[in-house]
Amino acid sequence: MAHIEPKLPGGFRDYLPEDMVPRQALIDTVRRVFERYGFAPLDTANVERTDVLTGGDPHFKKQIYGVASQGGDENELSLRFDLTVPLARAVAANIIGIKRPFKRYECGKVWRGERPQAGRYREFLQCDADIVGARSRIADAEIIALMNAVMNELGISGFLIRVNNRKILNGLPEYAGFDTWKIEPVLRALDKLDKLSWDEVAKELKSEKGAFLDDEAVGKIKHFVGVKKHSAKETLEEIEKLTKGIASAEQGVNELKEVTEYVARLGVPETAWAIDPSVARGLSYYTGTIFETVLTGLPNIGSVFSGGRYDNLVERFGGMSIPAVGASVGIDRLFAAMEQLGLIKRKKTVTEVMALNIDESCTRDLLEIVHELRTQNIRAELYAGDERNLKAQLSYAVSTEIPIVLIMGSPEREKKVVIVKDMEKRTQEEVKRKELAAKIRGLRAV
Amino acid sequence: MAHIEPKLPGGFRDYLPEDMVPRQALIDTVRRVFERYGFAPLDTANVERTDVLTGGDPHFKKQIYGVASQGGDENELSLRFDLTVPLARAVAANIIGIKRPFKRYECGKVWRGERPQAGRYREFLQCDADIVGARSRIADAEIIALMNAVMNELGISGFLIRVNNRKILNGLPEYAGFDTWKIEPVLRALDKLDKLSWDEVAKELKSEKGAFLDDEAVGKIKHFVGVKKHSAKETLEEIEKLTKGIASAEQGVNELKEVTEYVARLGVPETAWAIDPSVARGLSYYTGTIFETVLTGLPNIGSVFSGGRYDNLVERFGGMSIPAVGASVGIDRLFAAMEQLGLIKRKKTVTEVMALNIDESCTRDLLEIVHELRTQNIRAELYAGDERNLKAQLSYAVSTEIPIVLIMGSPEREKKVVIVKDMEKRTQEEVKRKELAAKIRGLRAV
Repeated sequence: MAHIEPKLPGGFRDYLPEDMVPRQALIDTVRRVFERYGFAPLDTANVERTDVLTGGDPHFKKQIYGVASQGGDENELSLRFDLTVPLARAVAANIIGIKRPFKRYECGKVWRGERPQAGRYREFLQCDADIVGARSRIADAEIIALMNAVMNELGISGFLIRVNNRKILNGLPEYAGFDTWKIEPVLRALDKLDKLSWDEVAKELKSEKGAFLDDEAVGKIKHFVGVKKHSAKETLEEIEKLTKGIASAEQGVNELKEVTEYVARLGVPETAWAIDPSVARGLSYYTGTIFETVLTGLPNIGSVFSGGRYDNLVERFGGMSIPAVGASVGIDRLFAAMEQLGLIKRKKTVTEVMALNIDESCTRDLLEIVHELRTQNIRAELYAGDERNLKAQLSYAVSTEIPIVLIMGSPEREKKVVIVKDMEKRTQEEVKRKELAAKIRGLRAV
Repeated sequence: MAHIEPKLPGGFRDYLPEDMVPRQALIDTVRRVFERYGFAPLDTANVERTDVLTGGDPHFKKQIYGVASQGGDENELSLRFDLTVPLARAVAANIIGIKRPFKRYECGKVWRGERPQAGRYREFLQCDADIVGARSRIADAEIIALMNAVMNELGISGFLIRVNNRKILNGLPEYAGFDTWKIEPVLRALDKLDKLSWDEVAKELKSEKGAFLDDEAVGKIKHFVGVKKHSAKETLEEIEKLTKGIASAEQGVNELKEVTEYVARLGVPETAWAIDPSVARGLSYYTGTIFETVLTGLPNIGSVFSGGRYDNLVERFGGMSIPAVGASVGIDRLFAAMEQLGLIKRKKTVTEVMALNIDESCTRDLLEIVHELRTQNIRAELYAGDERNLKAQLSYAVSTEIPIVLIMGSPEREKKVVIVKDMEKRTQEEVKRKELAAKIRGLRAV
């Protein structure tokens, strides 16, 4: 057989167990909180028709992975790049069957053909929670409360959910005095404030390729996005003053006032979130509240959990206008961040107990013991490898971080006992077979 | 905005919550059992280099979904079609870091460009458990015990794990008298015994395009694959008699004898599995024990959980020969089967309690109540939709199958009570706010 290099495509990666054990725990925690907030699971196809994903906008195509069609399908296909567009497509396709408000979550892979750089990947796992079919600000507040609850449940203390409203930003042309059509390049530039300094963003705002603004407009924008007061209420009052008489901004402010009240009732403390007029979010489909979550200890990592209201997306797929709001947590970026914060405990195994297999006359007894432990809900196994001696098998247990090891030779078998070795405490003792499960539970509970 | 049809590509599907809630429970059960047997999670990339997947065999390509490369990657890429080849690739790529035996599971999507027919899809979810780096028959027996445990835990009683050994089948040319090279078309034909009658398979065995066997050889094969005795032991004795002196078959029989002994010790009853010399498994990479799981009540659905030993696959990716054995459960096929067996309880929501929102003066109190219930681990929400009247909101609760509804108007608010409505029992009572969580837990526990 010709040898083939065991290489992954650029920008793709594996999670080996030592990373995947804590990553799976992270995903399970996110799912648990989502369900506690009343979101039910949905699973959509990972491959979509390309026009469904792009909305016909050819600009998008660069970032999307094309998939070769197979017999029986004449359409251009692609891998999805987020979970929001497939949700909108699924809602439109099942408009009768799905009762609204439709609260769903989905955890799934998405793909983006971005340039692979250090720490930048092309395949991501996202977990999204969305409420489709609710115009009420209760829905916006629920999503913010959900984001707060997820961060708390993950044990992350230093985070801030930054909230803004697209309607307020849509008042910028009138406020700062520039042409309405320039709002898109302005928002794209502002969205880079995470990563670029104000001067760099200002340069983009002024450049011919950007929004081509004059110094005065840029100065007013700088002042506006810099508004930050002690409380959400005060920040909103300041924005209100600045944008008085601009209808869109006034509506945005009123919406955020309502959101502010609701999130407080939903138990989100003032320290966990803030109104921040500099939040822009890149995607063009947002229409109202927008939010992102930054880690105060890791300002450069960007947002780990973000989203907003997109009241016009479902309309793309049919005549009906259906409002929606939701947020997405990027599991890979969050995992990398939590690793940096020392919140990830790597673990190579899920096994609690491994029986060594050093004396063939004991193999059958040990298989019975392992089976017995499993029926007691203890994660157990018999060493199945090809090494025969004690030292090699113990060394395997050490390097895979198995916490408890069982040893049985002929003397133990005759006495109906097993040697239980606690690998962490470096202690061992003889335990009667029938007391084994209780003994192990005791060691594991400590 | 131009309207785009909300259509999926042919052969792809969504799982809406009513299907996804029980499907997610199924997946979680499989994962839990896998972990109890000492398998740790692994997550590999869903996109691979095409030559990694095909092993250079162009025959494969027809069934594989090609993926367009993006800048920075010059290789031909494809979506994976199973989880076994990516595992072998990942082991070869991490040969130093991964300690063997390596017991991993992976739950992930795979894609096959098969013709979409009724109930046939092109995107599947598979959960695989494999032991890499163990030549011992303990590993084979562990996989069979794991399959049995998963089926039990899912509440499926009518199933049979059918076990064979490729080495026994490799003795067929000598036993039945045909050229060795014909073993591949013979196995491909035998693999169809699930779906075709013996006469149809015999026709294929005799045909020019198949193995081109004569009547005598086909008769001997028929006799051989028909061997079925009351116990695994007796079946093996019969096979042993038939294949006496054929080295490969004798080795296969000896391996299965060992497996038979181990699975009994691992608590697998004789009723749950059988040695069956007609089991062939299509894939060419199997080298030893092979197994599949059929549902006795649904003979036409084929195998839902199958696999085998593949001692040469990792070698494809480097000089090292590393033995491996594992099995894969096709979640979609299993889910469809369990639905037919009445074992799937469809459920549209995970919410336990929904507060109606009919009196705006109570919204803030209800948000507080919902928050409180969530901190008590009760899955709760406030109705976030745009309907204002009681009847419409109750009808929403009925159609989404929410079991408990809370109602508060001004009178209840003043009395610090909530009306708790049990939607299943059609009862309702006033409950003091501070007794609410306990009350709900009581209703849910019944």
